[in-house]
Amino acid sequence: MKGLVYNGPRDVRYESVKDPSLLDERGAIIQIEACAICGSDLHIYDGHGFADRSGFCVGHEGIGEVVEVGASVNRFRKGDRVLIAGGAGCGQCSECMRGRVDLCTGNGANVFGIGRGLQGLQAEAAWVPAADVTLAPIPEGMSDEQALLLTDNLPTAYFGAVNADVHPGATVAVVGLGPVGLLAVESALVMGAERVFAVDLIPERRALAERLGAIGIDGEGARPTIKEATGGRMCDSVIEAVGSDATIGVALDLAGRAAAVSVIGVSQSRSVPFPMALAFAKGLTFRIGVCPVQSFWPPLLPLVASGRIRGDRVFSHHLDLAEGAAGYAAFSAREDGTMKVLLRP
Amino acid sequence: MKGLVYNGPRDVRYESVKDPSLLDERGAIIQIEACAICGSDLHIYDGHGFADRSGFCVGHEGIGEVVEVGASVNRFRKGDRVLIAGGAGCGQCSECMRGRVDLCTGNGANVFGIGRGLQGLQAEAAWVPAADVTLAPIPEGMSDEQALLLTDNLPTAYFGAVNADVHPGATVAVVGLGPVGLLAVESALVMGAERVFAVDLIPERRALAERLGAIGIDGEGARPTIKEATGGRMCDSVIEAVGSDATIGVALDLAGRAAAVSVIGVSQSRSVPFPMALAFAKGLTFRIGVCPVQSFWPPLLPLVASGRIRGDRVFSHHLDLAEGAAGYAAFSAREDGTMKVLLRP
Amino acid sequence: MKGLVYNGPRDVRYESVKDPSLLDERGAIIQIEACAICGSDLHIYDGHGFADRSGFCVGHEGIGEVVEVGASVNRFRKGDRVLIAGGAGCGQCSECMRGRVDLCTGNGANVFGIGRGLQGLQAEAAWVPAADVTLAPIPEGMSDEQALLLTDNLPTAYFGAVNADVHPGATVAVVGLGPVGLLAVESALVMGAERVFAVDLIPERRALAERLGAIGIDGEGARPTIKEATGGRMCDSVIEAVGSDATIGVALDLAGRAAAVSVIGVSQSRSVPFPMALAFAKGLTFRIGVCPVQSFWPPLLPLVASGRIRGDRVFSHHLDLAEGAAGYAAFSAREDGTMKVLLRP
Amino acid sequence: MKGLVYNGPRDVRYESVKDPSLLDERGAIIQIEACAICGSDLHIYDGHGFADRSGFCVGHEGIGEVVEVGASVNRFRKGDRVLIAGGAGCGQCSECMRGRVDLCTGNGANVFGIGRGLQGLQAEAAWVPAADVTLAPIPEGMSDEQALLLTDNLPTAYFGAVNADVHPGATVAVVGLGPVGLLAVESALVMGAERVFAVDLIPERRALAERLGAIGIDGEGARPTIKEATGGRMCDSVIEAVGSDATIGVALDLAGRAAAVSVIGVSQSRSVPFPMALAFAKGLTFRIGVCPVQSFWPPLLPLVASGRIRGDRVFSHHLDLAEGAAGYAAFSAREDGTMKVLLRP
Repeated sequence: MKGLVYNGPRDVRYESVKDPSLLDERGAIIQIEACAICGSDLHIYDGHGFADRSGFCVGHEGIGEVVEVGASVNRFRKGDRVLIAGGAGCGQCSECMRGRVDLCTGNGANVFGIGRGLQGLQAEAAWVPAADVTLAPIPEGMSDEQALLLTDNLPTAYFGAVNADVHPGATVAVVGLGPVGLLAVESALVMGAERVFAVDLIPERRALAERLGAIGIDGEGARPTIKEATGGRMCDSVIEAVGSDATIGVALDLAGRAAAVSVIGVSQSRSVPFPMALAFAKGLTFRIGVCPVQSFWPPLLPLVASGRIRGDRVFSHHLDLAEGAAGYAAFSAREDGTMKVLLRP
Repeated sequence: MKGLVYNGPRDVRYESVKDPSLLDERGAIIQIEACAICGSDLHIYDGHGFADRSGFCVGHEGIGEVVEVGASVNRFRKGDRVLIAGGAGCGQCSECMRGRVDLCTGNGANVFGIGRGLQGLQAEAAWVPAADVTLAPIPEGMSDEQALLLTDNLPTAYFGAVNADVHPGATVAVVGLGPVGLLAVESALVMGAERVFAVDLIPERRALAERLGAIGIDGEGARPTIKEATGGRMCDSVIEAVGSDATIGVALDLAGRAAAVSVIGVSQSRSVPFPMALAFAKGLTFRIGVCPVQSFWPPLLPLVASGRIRGDRVFSHHLDLAEGAAGYAAFSAREDGTMKVLLRP
Repeated sequence: MKGLVYNGPRDVRYESVKDPSLLDERGAIIQIEACAICGSDLHIYDGHGFADRSGFCVGHEGIGEVVEVGASVNRFRKGDRVLIAGGAGCGQCSECMRGRVDLCTGNGANVFGIGRGLQGLQAEAAWVPAADVTLAPIPEGMSDEQALLLTDNLPTAYFGAVNADVHPGATVAVVGLGPVGLLAVESALVMGAERVFAVDLIPERRALAERLGAIGIDGEGARPTIKEATGGRMCDSVIEAVGSDATIGVALDLAGRAAAVSVIGVSQSRSVPFPMALAFAKGLTFRIGVCPVQSFWPPLLPLVASGRIRGDRVFSHHLDLAEGAAGYAAFSAREDGTMKVLLRP
Repeated sequence: MKGLVYNGPRDVRYESVKDPSLLDERGAIIQIEACAICGSDLHIYDGHGFADRSGFCVGHEGIGEVVEVGASVNRFRKGDRVLIAGGAGCGQCSECMRGRVDLCTGNGANVFGIGRGLQGLQAEAAWVPAADVTLAPIPEGMSDEQALLLTDNLPTAYFGAVNADVHPGATVAVVGLGPVGLLAVESALVMGAERVFAVDLIPERRALAERLGAIGIDGEGARPTIKEATGGRMCDSVIEAVGSDATIGVALDLAGRAAAVSVIGVSQSRSVPFPMALAFAKGLTFRIGVCPVQSFWPPLLPLVASGRIRGDRVFSHHLDLAEGAAGYAAFSAREDGTMKVLLRP
């Protein structure tokens, strides 16, 4: 079959790769109908040292049809249309079984397509381990775009809002308006935020956030603008969706007293200077981590199905999988308002 | 001064009443700018045995201007525009001070205008005890209608949604679409309900609920319709906003497994047959109580100020206070789609 | 093999029953090492109409050794020592997988040994469905008594305390001091209750509760005694562990304002008169349901393993399984301070 | 009157100071019956740059008798025995009124005896602002030691446990076993910790913790010991009660996946290197802040009154206020197992 293979920094190619096969009785083979490029894929593409190998098939966002299941798979059968969680655990420990793959006490969680054993989903087909807990049926009437978002970006954004203690009446800021940031805006609103300040340097992204109901703010003026708008109180909840030291600093700066700051941008830094005195004075909660995608499907599947969360507006490009290299290049260069790229095998 | 006086069942008259005076150092005199009739006022008006006396001034929903304050009032001064919580506690115990007048350990909570000591607010002016905890400043830009709703109906509706454990992704039903029921629809949506089924026999009320984003359902067919729409799961959260034995029964019937049923309609019954076996099988939570209005101002004031909750659409009539008797009669008869009556002195 | 068979009211006999066999690939056969009689077994024994059939093997509390597993069982193998949850769901739906068998969306939850398809555990061996979610490994060093309590009574008691909103500093009452009531006392203390009032008519049971740290109170004088001890505030959390209309009434009576009342005694009544006006005035939360045993293993296994909850003092009798009929008779007659009977095949 | 005055690093003297007087109508004068030295007082004493002035009376832990009240004080009168919260806010904003002085929207919170306007409590008498929210009555039967702990150390320790998300069944570590650390051990146990690992370099302190029910661990071996004891899972909740960069590092190191780390030791560092990659991999929650003492009185007063929390064992020395300088010297030098010093005027 064909798939997108990472051959080194800025070199992703549409190539022949080995067909997937059932590696154990609890897995399944999925024929991919659509996949997407995630911001964290760019850490691989841009050669940030995220992957120390090459020659593997990339991608961890995919949906498709079950074409083969292992003998021990209980919940899925050939022909089911499914969405695939971006990462999988052992599937047998009680943590995995309740969706908390981040707490897997078996072999630990793993992400598709980052070169650590699980082949990527930007391919014509893929093997998925622990199918019973790694897959979810796609509800009737849900668009491919929405299903794709449920594999990673939307649960991550929602997790970011949960981690920032968003609650009805909370004043919220989202720092960084890429796809995850925009979905964090939607998440915060559905969780009852009274206002969401959406902070980004790019006017087009702020405009998208405003269409969702947020108040767009240029990164430069974020602190004084929010200070004035809140009468000095600043924000109760801040969601950082970039991952750089600078934007983490901005997020801590926008937090008011007893606020929670949540980082969902993937940080490249091993160690970041943390403003302990400021955090002490404010009484901050700071949270960071990898989203256990599956554990957020119970609230998110109905919220998307009923239209309370739309999400799909974040897709800017629809390409053939064969054009994947161009998709990566455009996304990496932030060309033409590129937000999120959907690829079809 | 003039006010509306209860002279017996269906006999409310615009009459001269004694001017209010400062009864202690912690109270204040408010010149009423607008007041409203609440569904629970009808229990008095209709002679349901709610009030065993007559000759008192009615009403517990009012806003106005501070015209005099006691020496110990810290937070308000002459000229402030304020909204008045529908009930007041001692104001000195730590429960009152944190807004939980329902837990007052002093002289206990009391409601304005029900004939138990606190004169009603459907008058030109009123004395308000414990001003520091019974009043809130009206934020700039808030309409009189919105401020009036914050004195009772909206906190009660929101309390009903909180008591029904509404959370992001929850499937919700609201039984009874009077003003409080409609505000419960808005509350449930802002708290993240994936869908709100709005149940009432009157088509006009269902239409109002649908305009807010709910799915209107005729009372007769509520159970089968919701059963089909939810694939048999029924609702996670049910808010009962009528208070009759029949509607409480409907609410318990619409609840699914591990659901919460919240009663905010004022029940006239001392004892109601409770379906213990059904509740045991479903694993229900059942909650009922009087809303501590003040304790919900922190989330609700910003939610109304930012437009996330509108609320004011529930007003159907604007009358002079002098026409109050006609307002009561229309509201009691449910004439002409009467929903909620605002009165101006 | 041999087991205890229900042959009609007050007629349980030690008889030959069919050997269990693997009914599907996800089940397991357990050789029972110890089992116990639960208060709810007495509803069957006493002929309360709980079971409409006879001729089935009873009991839903058992521990033992895995002797055979189906091909799809992932987490257990021959030779494992396990405790068995008192009830099982389909084991394949996401609710079962996270331990919420009460919300099973498959074939629904079922209890062992009540005549509805799952053979009882008061036998030499038993087939257990959905082994991966119905069994837990017995930690090293845990006594058989403690392991047996974790199959039903302790999770039920703890669930009762959770449902009563017990929290650090809460004033708690437990009504009824059978095994589950005594375990509710321990649960409430470990959850931070400032005091636990333990209410029962039998002095020996109150003495047991006092040894655990509670304040024993005779049922007759419960209300005035607690009223005085709390300065009129009454209790924040009340756990009812009997299930009769009278004791449910007592529980509602001991609740203070904004309190939660939790019923874990199995009620025989289809409908109970509920004091709606009282509940409204107090602002009560009322909860009832069947405990999803598995979902409480994560907190309870470590709490028992570390000795924070002891539990095992509730056992009063240790008998051979062959003497089971005598055990039932003694338990039913509440002879000789009979609290809980352990049976060994 | 006499009091302890800070005259520069390591120079605290028992001197004449100005008698307190009523500064406004909402304050009160308290005749101090007992006061205590807090670990954070040593930051002043040791000249850590905490106070940039000298010549002020120190101390923020005190209890005593009300000798005079302002005209607007509602809840206290002459003769009441009271404990004094270590810090006070404006007392008029709704945050102060509900005990959250950390969120004061008035003039902000202030601590007694740190040279910023509020005279210290290590004196014969003191003026206390906003008496209604800064004081609490001392319940009958409570020892002076217990009452003193409720002014700062115990609420801070409990706040630390709350911030570390301690819950029934949680595995907890407390780093640093001074008075606050020992009280955090007690707090974690009352909140349901299955085990508390108590980490300190000093064997005597570990012995005290073990008497409370903890497992003492030498600081050096903390990580490997806890790793083995928990089968590699490490801790769910870590409470840091020292405030140094090194101990904050240890605390982050002892945290397991999805754990919460709470810092209550007063950090001297403006900025601390934060291990972002480790925190991301673990999925950590990190919390820091100043305890709003008053907000923890509702759970803690009953827990201490009922004996669930003892606390008073942390006092090692009882001295006359006139001997205060010796008390400071001993505490600063950690002489003779000095833990906490009570001073009596």
